[in-house]
Amino acid sequence: MNQKLFFTALIVLFVLSGVSHYGHWGTIPEFILSALAILFVAGFLGKATESVAHYAGQRLGGFLNATFGNAAELIIAIFLVRAGEFEMVKASITGSIIGNLLLVLGLSVLLGGLKYKEQTFNVQLAGHNSSLMILAVIALFIPAIFVSAEHFSIDQDRTLSISIAAILIIAYILWLIFSMITHKSILADEEVTTPDHGEEPAWSKTMSIVFLVVATVMTALVSEWLVHTLDSFSERFSLSAIFVGAFLIAIVGNAAEHSAAILLAMKNKIGAAVEIAVGSSLQIALFVAPVLVFVSMLFGETMDLVFTTIELAAIGVAVFIATSISRDGRTNWYEGALLLCVYVILGFAFYLV
Amino acid sequence: MNQKLFFTALIVLFVLSGVSHYGHWGTIPEFILSALAILFVAGFLGKATESVAHYAGQRLGGFLNATFGNAAELIIAIFLVRAGEFEMVKASITGSIIGNLLLVLGLSVLLGGLKYKEQTFNVQLAGHNSSLMILAVIALFIPAIFVSAEHFSIDQDRTLSISIAAILIIAYILWLIFSMITHKSILADEEVTTPDHGEEPAWSKTMSIVFLVVATVMTALVSEWLVHTLDSFSERFSLSAIFVGAFLIAIVGNAAEHSAAILLAMKNKIGAAVEIAVGSSLQIALFVAPVLVFVSMLFGETMDLVFTTIELAAIGVAVFIATSISRDGRTNWYEGALLLCVYVILGFAFYLV
Amino acid sequence: MNQKLFFTALIVLFVLSGVSHYGHWGTIPEFILSALAILFVAGFLGKATESVAHYAGQRLGGFLNATFGNAAELIIAIFLVRAGEFEMVKASITGSIIGNLLLVLGLSVLLGGLKYKEQTFNVQLAGHNSSLMILAVIALFIPAIFVSAEHFSIDQDRTLSISIAAILIIAYILWLIFSMITHKSILADEEVTTPDHGEEPAWSKTMSIVFLVVATVMTALVSEWLVHTLDSFSERFSLSAIFVGAFLIAIVGNAAEHSAAILLAMKNKIGAAVEIAVGSSLQIALFVAPVLVFVSMLFGETMDLVFTTIELAAIGVAVFIATSISRDGRTNWYEGALLLCVYVILGFAFYLV
Repeated sequence: MNQKLFFTALIVLFVLSGVSHYGHWGTIPEFILSALAILFVAGFLGKATESVAHYAGQRLGGFLNATFGNAAELIIAIFLVRAGEFEMVKASITGSIIGNLLLVLGLSVLLGGLKYKEQTFNVQLAGHNSSLMILAVIALFIPAIFVSAEHFSIDQDRTLSISIAAILIIAYILWLIFSMITHKSILADEEVTTPDHGEEPAWSKTMSIVFLVVATVMTALVSEWLVHTLDSFSERFSLSAIFVGAFLIAIVGNAAEHSAAILLAMKNKIGAAVEIAVGSSLQIALFVAPVLVFVSMLFGETMDLVFTTIELAAIGVAVFIATSISRDGRTNWYEGALLLCVYVILGFAFYLV
Repeated sequence: MNQKLFFTALIVLFVLSGVSHYGHWGTIPEFILSALAILFVAGFLGKATESVAHYAGQRLGGFLNATFGNAAELIIAIFLVRAGEFEMVKASITGSIIGNLLLVLGLSVLLGGLKYKEQTFNVQLAGHNSSLMILAVIALFIPAIFVSAEHFSIDQDRTLSISIAAILIIAYILWLIFSMITHKSILADEEVTTPDHGEEPAWSKTMSIVFLVVATVMTALVSEWLVHTLDSFSERFSLSAIFVGAFLIAIVGNAAEHSAAILLAMKNKIGAAVEIAVGSSLQIALFVAPVLVFVSMLFGETMDLVFTTIELAAIGVAVFIATSISRDGRTNWYEGALLLCVYVILGFAFYLV
Repeated sequence: MNQKLFFTALIVLFVLSGVSHYGHWGTIPEFILSALAILFVAGFLGKATESVAHYAGQRLGGFLNATFGNAAELIIAIFLVRAGEFEMVKASITGSIIGNLLLVLGLSVLLGGLKYKEQTFNVQLAGHNSSLMILAVIALFIPAIFVSAEHFSIDQDRTLSISIAAILIIAYILWLIFSMITHKSILADEEVTTPDHGEEPAWSKTMSIVFLVVATVMTALVSEWLVHTLDSFSERFSLSAIFVGAFLIAIVGNAAEHSAAILLAMKNKIGAAVEIAVGSSLQIALFVAPVLVFVSMLFGETMDLVFTTIELAAIGVAVFIATSISRDGRTNWYEGALLLCVYVILGFAFYLV
């Protein structure tokens, strides 16, 4: 999209969303405007992060990109945590994971596969990612299993959730050390096919930092406005908190990844598309989820990591089929269609809850 | 088997079974005769389908073979659906899947492996099949998980089952498009090792069509007679409906695949044997099961796709170990023995229910 | 460790442990001394087994090594069975499996990986082991699923457990036939990288047999002393039977494997380390667990194979991530760290029970 057009839309939607919020225009216009605005501010935040990352040098830049890649989702989730909407937070974490693994990956593989008969990517990286993904699944399953099977008290439940959150953050830091320091070279082959982070950014260093600050503030504001409308919106259309969190919020919050991954797949860079989809899921599970546990402690009430049975089923199912499909390093349109079938099945099931 | 002998046995058993049914000879002779007769009429139906498929040309023929390969099981299941025996239908779907993945595949790999030290087959095809199998497992697990965890009402339950059935049929049609149109050439290597569908059929075109009609009618009749004895038979021997459905009916209904796959494995065509076993399971899960949901609607009461915990456990276990064993494209006798061990364990467990 | 020093420590600790036991020194000294003593007697038993195996010739020796490799654990478990501590027996089986797959394998891969950037091993063997491991998981899951979903009576439960135990022992014997007779040559490549069982043993044939008898008797005695202190020890520190069984006993009983595997990994023989860790888990699940069922029948009360939900979750999780990591035949330090993360998460969770 043309840059001037992008900024015009960004500013118009941001202003309209703010006006609708403070002017109490009502649930539907407020929801639509804040959802549209978040698409653009999240895109802006992503560009600003990339630009700052460029000036920060390769190593720190890689870290910034990896860690703040889901900044918009993190900010939305923090507002949900502050509002005590723990159920919706966990639903949106679930939704981000399955959205990335099924919708983003599914669309990328399907559309890429309609253009190219078979697309291939580095299998070794896929192997690493799948082991990390399994750690994430394990970490999210353990609390639910122990809490339900052993009738944990709230205290035991929170102690376990905090311990697991701490271990996940350690695992995440070790992964950064592994992939950016000790085994950078082994994973480097892949970098050729990743998005061209190397191209000259449009903004100067100072401007990039200013933009990053501005984008963060804008994202925070729009997130607050969006979160504010969610309760009355879901009530209005009799949608369950879990459906809103897992499908609506997750799709809106991940829109930037969606378009980036699909465009890459259609340029035959399926490896980069897979990396975006899987990497984003990993960040949500290994970094965003545990950070939110600690954030909730700052607000006075600890959020646990006990997901509901259907959330865990959805995550397990998504990881299982995405891992199975990406294991061989080849994709075709039918595999994309399969991922989308599973997404639609889950969408129906959550909608009926 | 000599063709003349086959037809003699077919007609004798068919007539005897009919006479025993209408003459009320009693549970045991009626059960034994109809079970024996179904072996032969299912074999006859299989041959007639193949012959018609031959004349229909490669593409339509492939479709016919793929879709009517489990015609006998479908017909038996339709009679069970009409009789309102939904529990036994789902048990027989379960039994067909585990029978194909554990018993048929296990015997093929074991007997093939006793003759040849190591047998190999096309790994890429195995990968595709395993992704499809995972979709099938997901589709069968989701209703049970949502119904039990979210206390779905009967309406929600049926809406979900119908939606999933529709998606599975779409996925099945897309698979036919993928494997017979867009990616025919990629999967073509494998075709060399598949059964010689190409050999000249024994019957003329007209005769084949007549035989297909006759075989379908005979299968329908014998299925009805068999279904009719099941209730009193299982009562007589204190067998649970689930055991009868999952083991007795499934073994009888799949006998044709069993012998075909084992013979191929012993001719060192293990790839074709794997394709029969896995392909047949896939058809049951992705085509027969959802079609039965729609068939049940015609008879006035919707059958849902909510399988019991132990059925899902059996399916999950069978898919898991069959996928693990076939992933590397090599088989040996011990892997066959392992599959059979799992089948025997499940058999014991279902027998005790 | 210097052999003289080893024997001195062995005898001193054995005597002290016995004196503390019969002198009623109190829970803590008795526990600590018997735990230390078991480390040394288990090591002694392992060396004696290896030495006898050397003289027994390749085939019988391989069998002895494979089957008595977990002799110490088996002896401890038999004393627990005799004491009717079925819950702790099953916890210690769980603990041995997860200890081998997560702690032993994790430390080996981590420490080996810190020294060597990437370590590789024979993938084909890993494939075989993973199929066997899946059989083991299935065999341990089936009773729990059927008992809870179908409300099995104690009789049904025991019948099922005995049947499964019998099938597992058959599968184990078939595995010995496969790996030592029919497919010895295929697996032989690997043998080059296994521990140097071939080096000249320090003891003569007669001495080895005498030592094997002495070591077995010592292990039995110390096991009895250790088991005797467990109840009051776990009460004293408010530890659940399941935590004591799954973590304390399992770590103590497996110490010999731990040190052997880690030393091999640090000599870049990661294949042998993986074989020890995975092979030991397999023996526990396929041989020790079913044998204990039959042993319990000798003592008059049949132990079933119904594991608790959290034990099964732990076993499932451990097998899943260990299989995922070892599937590609390459390891690096981060994969070891991941395995240890999962072990620590499980440790926290079991501690809180």
